[in-house]
Amino acid sequence: MFEVAELKVRLPRSDYENELPSIRSTLLDTQQKVEEANIPVILLIAGVDGAGKGDLIGCLNEWFDPRYMQTHAFAEPSQDERERPPHWRYWMTLPPRGRIAIYAVGWYGPALADRIHKRIGNAKFDKELAQIAKLEKTLIDDGAIVLKYWLHLSKKQQEKNLEKLQDNPETRWRVTAIDRKHLKLYDKFKVIAESAIRRTSTAEAPWTLINAYDPHHRRLTAARHIINTLTGRLENDASQLALVNSNRPIVPERDIPAKIHLLRSLRTDLRIHKSAYQKQSAQLFFRLSLATRQARQQQRSAILLFEGWDASGKGGVIRRVTGALDARIYRVIPIAAPTDEEKAHHYLWRFWRHLPRAGNVTIYDRSWYGRVLVERVENFAQPDAWARAYSEINDFEEELTHNGIILLKFWMHIDKDEQLRRFKERENTSYKRYKITPDDYRNRDKWDQYEMAVDEMVSRTSTEYAPWHLIEANDKYYGRIKVLKTICDAYARVLSQ
Amino acid sequence: MFEVAELKVRLPRSDYENELPSIRSTLLDTQQKVEEANIPVILLIAGVDGAGKGDLIGCLNEWFDPRYMQTHAFAEPSQDERERPPHWRYWMTLPPRGRIAIYAVGWYGPALADRIHKRIGNAKFDKELAQIAKLEKTLIDDGAIVLKYWLHLSKKQQEKNLEKLQDNPETRWRVTAIDRKHLKLYDKFKVIAESAIRRTSTAEAPWTLINAYDPHHRRLTAARHIINTLTGRLENDASQLALVNSNRPIVPERDIPAKIHLLRSLRTDLRIHKSAYQKQSAQLFFRLSLATRQARQQQRSAILLFEGWDASGKGGVIRRVTGALDARIYRVIPIAAPTDEEKAHHYLWRFWRHLPRAGNVTIYDRSWYGRVLVERVENFAQPDAWARAYSEINDFEEELTHNGIILLKFWMHIDKDEQLRRFKERENTSYKRYKITPDDYRNRDKWDQYEMAVDEMVSRTSTEYAPWHLIEANDKYYGRIKVLKTICDAYARVLSQ
Repeated sequence: MFEVAELKVRLPRSDYENELPSIRSTLLDTQQKVEEANIPVILLIAGVDGAGKGDLIGCLNEWFDPRYMQTHAFAEPSQDERERPPHWRYWMTLPPRGRIAIYAVGWYGPALADRIHKRIGNAKFDKELAQIAKLEKTLIDDGAIVLKYWLHLSKKQQEKNLEKLQDNPETRWRVTAIDRKHLKLYDKFKVIAESAIRRTSTAEAPWTLINAYDPHHRRLTAARHIINTLTGRLENDASQLALVNSNRPIVPERDIPAKIHLLRSLRTDLRIHKSAYQKQSAQLFFRLSLATRQARQQQRSAILLFEGWDASGKGGVIRRVTGALDARIYRVIPIAAPTDEEKAHHYLWRFWRHLPRAGNVTIYDRSWYGRVLVERVENFAQPDAWARAYSEINDFEEELTHNGIILLKFWMHIDKDEQLRRFKERENTSYKRYKITPDDYRNRDKWDQYEMAVDEMVSRTSTEYAPWHLIEANDKYYGRIKVLKTICDAYARVLSQ
Repeated sequence: MFEVAELKVRLPRSDYENELPSIRSTLLDTQQKVEEANIPVILLIAGVDGAGKGDLIGCLNEWFDPRYMQTHAFAEPSQDERERPPHWRYWMTLPPRGRIAIYAVGWYGPALADRIHKRIGNAKFDKELAQIAKLEKTLIDDGAIVLKYWLHLSKKQQEKNLEKLQDNPETRWRVTAIDRKHLKLYDKFKVIAESAIRRTSTAEAPWTLINAYDPHHRRLTAARHIINTLTGRLENDASQLALVNSNRPIVPERDIPAKIHLLRSLRTDLRIHKSAYQKQSAQLFFRLSLATRQARQQQRSAILLFEGWDASGKGGVIRRVTGALDARIYRVIPIAAPTDEEKAHHYLWRFWRHLPRAGNVTIYDRSWYGRVLVERVENFAQPDAWARAYSEINDFEEELTHNGIILLKFWMHIDKDEQLRRFKERENTSYKRYKITPDDYRNRDKWDQYEMAVDEMVSRTSTEYAPWHLIEANDKYYGRIKVLKTICDAYARVLSQ
């Protein structure tokens, strides 16, 4: 989920300073509109340590008219608060109609802290998130606007920021033992945060991920998002919500320079020599063959799912994988246009049909992700249908993995030049010519749209239980080895449990 | 929740036979419309044992055209099914577009059975219900119509039905040891069922409670409801859903003869002699005084909430209760029109404000139920606002009780004649005259509307954690004793824990 938010996105200071005056005056106008509309607005700012939550809240307090807003941060509960239900403190601070209130972490604080410090288990955590979702729903049904921002940093960057603070004698005091402890908890916190965000992001109270790498970028991005969303909601509540389904999980941060893309951040120069490939692949085939036999004995099923650009080598890698498997235990399901019977059912039905029996392997050559890739880009699916699909897919995959199925998702990535080279090669090789059709060129023309769709797909469906594996496949050998290794490692983890 | 469904509602055989032909032909027309609309329809029939689930499913199979429908009941999972995730069997049986499928208990079966037999705890049960809600949402988002019926019987009636089956040599074989075991589990099952229904009843996939006391009534009621809902949904999906909020918990069965009402089923002849009242009340005051002191030491808070007809004696009973309490620990909050500040917040905010501190007692003279009583009947609240309030109130009360607050809700009931007698008495007593205003007579004119609103309020907000206590108060002494006793017993239960 955080993939895009971990890219290094920067906004030059000059751009920031140019844009700031107009942003500030628009923020004031928006605040005025909120007052006129007589609607309470809640802005909740959360995120990882060191990502600049305090800095952003400070800016917003400076940019809005402070007379018509409040900011609330919560420390340990007071005696008064301890004697009432936990949400009492939030109810007592809610903004009246027409006012904006900023909550630093707000009602998410206790649940996140209790979970990371293991004071509560997963079941209790889920329950608290459900309580939070109910609180938000209650406020929204009454007309409130609730916007939630998650400021995210990669682990490396968090570390660097702390170092920077510590190196400067003026800011050293701000780095506490707790910060250093939190840095150690980064990976765990990320998983917990992801789960919290996923479970509480609704169309009406969406979370927005902010790439917090650069202070200028994160401040302007947040401010712009606040302006746009508030304006949209105030102008026409219904139309703003029409496109988004109430189950829609997350509005990922797309407000970044156009040239920054997840896929473009992948390296295209990774190669492996043929002799090394032959040696390594032989070992991996052996490991894979052994692992799948063992999994069969243990009744563990697996699903391998391949998506990728045309000519990215999906077919080739699938042939290599199946070469190592006992033919009785696997099935390859190539996904093309649905049959009549499939069309008469829910789009997930055709995938449910082919779920592997215990101990078996189903390989999907293209998959349910068609919904948010080709069906989205080619307008085969309505916007509300593909927008809804992200959470449907997450739920589906959660059900699979929680029932013990090993699920591995691969995106085979090549760059645009390499694709063209392969197209030409196919055209010039008689036994490969059948593989290339005018459709391939048409898809290629929509490369940028597909790139955006893939970015969003990975952001929204890379989960702690079913992450995407992005495979640099400009070099076929490198790509195949990475896929094989990922599969073998996944089996090893599961079988050793 | 089940209060109305436990009343003895009967439909004479002649009425049934008169109406049946037109119902049957309309069912066939509706089925035709479903096919033309190319929409899949799921009818799920569940309920307590002996309530006639099988009988209703049999009728529907006879009345619909069987060529265009399917019925699914699930026994122990097959080998095939055990090797896939639990929901796989449901996916494999889903109706294609244009067809109706009836599910006997369907996906609720395993969760209910596992919970009643203690194979899973409450947390896991909630999780399974959440999975079920997701499944239904996924189907509905794809265009499916999902209607769920719960056939309900009182414990007494369930017992009688079993006896009847057993007395008849032709049907004796149908009564198994399991049925007799289930009868013992009735009370537990009712609590579990209530929780399941509450958590999975949404605007889009509502549960409808069917009073199953009489076979003719339950068959026609279900058939009529199916016809009306399907027709409405097929004709104009949006308008049907517009009024109901997606959180709306339950559409209670209102399709019963108009003279059958929950409140009218209460006895009005219950009396207690003055001397007995004096003796019993003295004992109860003593118990109450002791209990509240003890509760104060244990830091247990309590909320007592009084609703009831005008002149039903709310004020009198509150004065008696507070007479037994230490003045430092209680507050009486009379609820009249909201202040400006209260109007600027969510309607629950004014009640949150007055929550008792640990060990204290807050008494609400009228309460948040105003939303679904006076505000509903007088049109002060929009229909979507009061319809939404049922679940908001349930959530609010769940939060209170789960945080250890003792919450007792009383409806003070008198009949219409007794009210008039009291009005006259007040008018004729100088120091009571201030209590009577033209408003009282105006409210009295809307008695029937209030009666319906109270019925619905009790059906929807009587929960396992905060049930309504209906107080027969035609005789003041009787009513007061019942209230005092209820409070004392509740304290005793809690303090002995």
